[in-house]
Order: sequence, then C-alpha cells, then structure tokens
Amino acid sequence: MIILSRAEIEALVDLDAGLHAVEQAYIAASQGRATIPPVGYIAFPQADGDCHIKYGHIAGDPIFVVKIASGFYRNPSIGLSTSSGVMLALSATTGQLQAILLDEGFLTDLRTGLGGAIATRALCRKDARRVAIIGSGIQAGMQIRCLHRAMKDRSLTFALWARSKTKAAGIVETLAEEGIAVELARNLEALCRSADTIITTTPSREPLVCSDWIRPGTHITAIGADAPGKQELETALVARADHRIADRLEQSLAHGEFSTAFEAGAIMLESCRELGAVLDGAVKGRQNQDEITIADLTGIAVQDIAITRAILDAHRRT
Amino acid sequence: MIILSRAEIEALVDLDAGLHAVEQAYIAASQGRATIPPVGYIAFPQADGDCHIKYGHIAGDPIFVVKIASGFYRNPSIGLSTSSGVMLALSATTGQLQAILLDEGFLTDLRTGLGGAIATRALCRKDARRVAIIGSGIQAGMQIRCLHRAMKDRSLTFALWARSKTKAAGIVETLAEEGIAVELARNLEALCRSADTIITTTPSREPLVCSDWIRPGTHITAIGADAPGKQELETALVARADHRIADRLEQSLAHGEFSTAFEAGAIMLESCRELGAVLDGAVKGRQNQDEITIADLTGIAVQDIAITRAILDAHRRT
Repeated sequence: MIILSRAEIEALVDLDAGLHAVEQAYIAASQGRATIPPVGYIAFPQADGDCHIKYGHIAGDPIFVVKIASGFYRNPSIGLSTSSGVMLALSATTGQLQAILLDEGFLTDLRTGLGGAIATRALCRKDARRVAIIGSGIQAGMQIRCLHRAMKDRSLTFALWARSKTKAAGIVETLAEEGIAVELARNLEALCRSADTIITTTPSREPLVCSDWIRPGTHITAIGADAPGKQELETALVARADHRIADRLEQSLAHGEFSTAFEAGAIMLESCRELGAVLDGAVKGRQNQDEITIADLTGIAVQDIAITRAILDAHRRT
Repeated sequence: MIILSRAEIEALVDLDAGLHAVEQAYIAASQGRATIPPVGYIAFPQADGDCHIKYGHIAGDPIFVVKIASGFYRNPSIGLSTSSGVMLALSATTGQLQAILLDEGFLTDLRTGLGGAIATRALCRKDARRVAIIGSGIQAGMQIRCLHRAMKDRSLTFALWARSKTKAAGIVETLAEEGIAVELARNLEALCRSADTIITTTPSREPLVCSDWIRPGTHITAIGADAPGKQELETALVARADHRIADRLEQSLAHGEFSTAFEAGAIMLESCRELGAVLDGAVKGRQNQDEITIADLTGIAVQDIAITRAILDAHRRT
C-alpha cells in the first residue's frame, strides 16, 4: 500500500497531466460514465466545523476514490489551517485500499485550480489576454498558477484585487518567485472594466462584481460560491450572460453562483449547461467575440478521482 | 499522526475495554447523543462489489470516525478476503486526521462480536448456560470469543452448527487453541431445542430457525440479516417473541431480521425497542424466565467510533 505525505504529493504534481486528467473527468461525468453518490456531511456546530465526504468512480477506472475534507473555522486562531483532508484510493475490482494521500487539502486546492483553468480556457475569447483575479485566499494564487500553465501558448497578463492589500501583495510576491508576473489592482471596478477574463475566488455573501462593469466578450469563472448564501456576481450579470456553464448543474443551481438567479426566476435550468458537455463538443460554448460567458464551479468528486489518479500515475513512474 | 497495521491493532485489543466502549456507545446512540449521518454507498456491479461509508460522532468525544468498508464477492477466487476496510479518526475540534487504522475489516468483525455479546448478556436468562451458534463465517468464532469474555463469570457451554462441517470443525479447532471449548453439533433442530441462547451468524436468505424449535425463556441474537432479502429466523418466531430489541430500529425494520415480519404486518414499530435504551434502563428487557427475547443487530457507526477509541486509548498507553 502506498502512503504519500503532502510534500511527496507536491513533488509529484505535473500541471499538464493534471489538466488532462481533470478535463477527461468532466467529460466522463457529463457523459454519464461516472458514479457520484450524494456527498456525505457531518457538522460540528460547537467547534464551528464540518466534514464532507466525496466519493465516486469513473467507469473503467481501476480505482475509486474517497475524499474526506474538513473545514474548521476556528483553526487559524490556534495556528492551524482551516481546511484539511485525505484522499483514499481503493481498487474498483477488489475493494482493497491501494493508497492513502495525506494531502491535507492540497489536492482539493489543486484540482479546483485545474478545474477553473479548464473552464476558463474553454470559454474565454481566443484573443483574451487580461485576466482579473478577485480574492486573496489559496484559490487566488492557484487559479493563476493553473491558468498560466493551461494557456502558456498565449501571453496572458494577470491583475489581482482583494480587500486585503497585504494578503494580495503576498500572493503577488509568491507568484513572482515562481516566475509569474501579477499586477496588484487598486480598484475593483476599473479592474473588471478592463478585463477580458475574470476569476472570482472569494467567500463573499454579497455580489462583488456588478453587471454594468462587464464588457461584451468577457468570460467569468466563479469559484467562490459553494454553499447556500454565498454569491460573488450580481444576479443581473448571471441573468445577462449568453452562456451559463456549471461543473455540475444540480449543485450550481442548489447552492452555487447560479442559485440566487435560479431561485429568483431570472434564469431557467434549460439555459444552463455542463462543462463536460462543452469540453466534449456535445454542447456549444462561446459562439463569438461579444458573448458573455460564466462558468460556475462548485467542485465534483470526479476531479478528486482524476487528480488522485494523476498523482498515483506519477508515483508509479518514479 | 498514527498509522496502525492490522497486526498492531490486533495486539492492542482488550475485549473488556471493547465491551465497555461499545456498550456506552449504544447508550449514547439511544439517548440521542450521537450524530450518525446516513451510510454512504457505492456499488461496483461489474466486479460484484460494493463499498459502505459509515461515519459519526458521539457528543463530547474528542474524535469522530469514518469507516470505509468494502465487500467484493469474487475476491476469494483470487485468494483475497471478501471484505476489507479502513478506519480513520479525525479530531472533532480541528478536523485534522489523527489516526489511520489499517484494520482490513478486523475492527468491524470485532465490534460486531462485541455488540452481539453485549446484547446477549443483557437479554438472556441469568441461568442461561447452553449457547448455540449457527454459521461458519468469521462472526461464528467472534461471537463465541466475545461472549465467552463478556460472561466469563458464568459457565457457558458452546455448541456450533453450520452447513459446512469442515468450516465448523475449523472454528472449533481455532477456539480450542484459544482455550474455548466448543461442541460440534450435528443437528440444527436438536441444537435449537436444547439451547438457552442462540446466536445466528449466517448470510441466509431463508429462515433457518423455526419457531417450533424454540423453548420459552430462550434468547436469540440475530447477526446475519443486514440487507434486504436476508432472513435467519422464521417470521412466526420474530412475531412470537416477547421482546424485540434492535441496535438501530430504522435499520432493523428496513433491512434487518425484523424487516420481513414488519413488512408482513406481523409486528409493529411500537413493539420493538433499541438496545441502548435497554442497557441504560430506560426500557425494560427480559422480565422473567419464560419470555423469548430477540436482539437484531445490523451494525451502527457508534460501534466503529467506540472500537476505534478503545484501540487508540490502548495505543496511547503503550
């Protein structure tokens, strides 16, 4: 049995392989080739914490994956990360445990970054260059890192805005050390008005991005809203978009970025599509340079399966 | 973080501590002090396998437990055990992974044995001596081992019957090596007619034990029926019992030994009780020497929590 520490896992990461694996997983999910049972959930109200158990299998895969991911929101006060987690890979032919990835939540961050990059690449204009990132959490840096890799053949420029200028400056510094130049934006409205592509990564509970600020032809990837009450984009903007693409429609409409507009009756189920269907060509994405596209990603178990397989494949080759 | 192998776990087992821990866990569950979300499930029909994810938390416990248990029914043909599994202990205050118990299903077998012994001890006559065990799987031996320990102050005698005489003889031999004498019974009806206590541990899909064979005052612990279609006791026997006690009523009536009688209208929800309520005295169990009592155990997550805590406590003391 394989047991990998976070450091060992980080050393095995290959962004290109991860992008390919997660893209194929989205397609498998949209084609109905994945078994994704309902997410398990247990709450610890006294500790302000909860735990999600995501698991699933892609038909034909030799393994299935169980991910246990905790969020305990008082952890930072004692010097611990809010989120932690572990991925287990089990044989889909014998049920036996094959590998334990002690990733402490890193692989969730990574597969979320890869998912965002895949959606952004698939939906933004071909001539899109200026990318605006909103937020100062782990995903702000991760989205830039993954998109920089996914679209390495285009000369993207990145600009970051966050409420916390200190945290934003920290991300800019870290990425500079990795060789990725990011501009620190002072004004959110001006940033959005100048961007070809916008990626929102905040835990906001009220809209940050107004519809008026968005130029025709803009693509937006919304990462932050993953639970009831969270919202990053003005409802009018979600309703105005020419294409609304979700990683998993039932999640997006229930508790993702599209949920507020859906509940308000501003959008219909029929006017939303799934990312995997766009990726495999079953559904058309952007049609021209003027359309506004929005991708809402809430995270699905096939991403966990894909990233776990990619790490284990890399481990096998070492 | 603690990682324990099956051999390390087996070396840490203390049956007395396990009995106490599981008993307290049943009481906690019946008192509403346990959070037990619905069991997660994923099937692998092409491999004739499935995987259950049981998890939960007992209020006030420092850890919560996630158990992943697989059953792949073609495994024996390639020399592997049908069942396998792993238990994870996570902090209930920070969500961080504390321990991985690579028990390969052993702790599930053990906590099931302990649960059976607790139910049997609580419900059998005080003067019950002759224990009949039916079946030749892992639980046949485990139930004897745990009951022998739980009732070590009484001179129990054990007799085992199984369809496979070879397997039954193997169990008798193994237990003899552990110092527990078990008689090999040739005739099931005669065995049941002579027993004070009967423990059924088979995967049978049709009743093995007839109501006519059961003397007044007999206690029966039914372990085998844990899924729709499984049944070890004649429906008339379930209906005839003076006390029907389940570890978890909703499971027992949905897919346990009581489900056939319940669906047939032969018993009512109100005529069944939970084991934890009997153990803490909230509900009365056996009232006299003539009553027939039946305990139906389908297994609940608090047993997994209890046995994991007992093993980790023992580990801490080493």
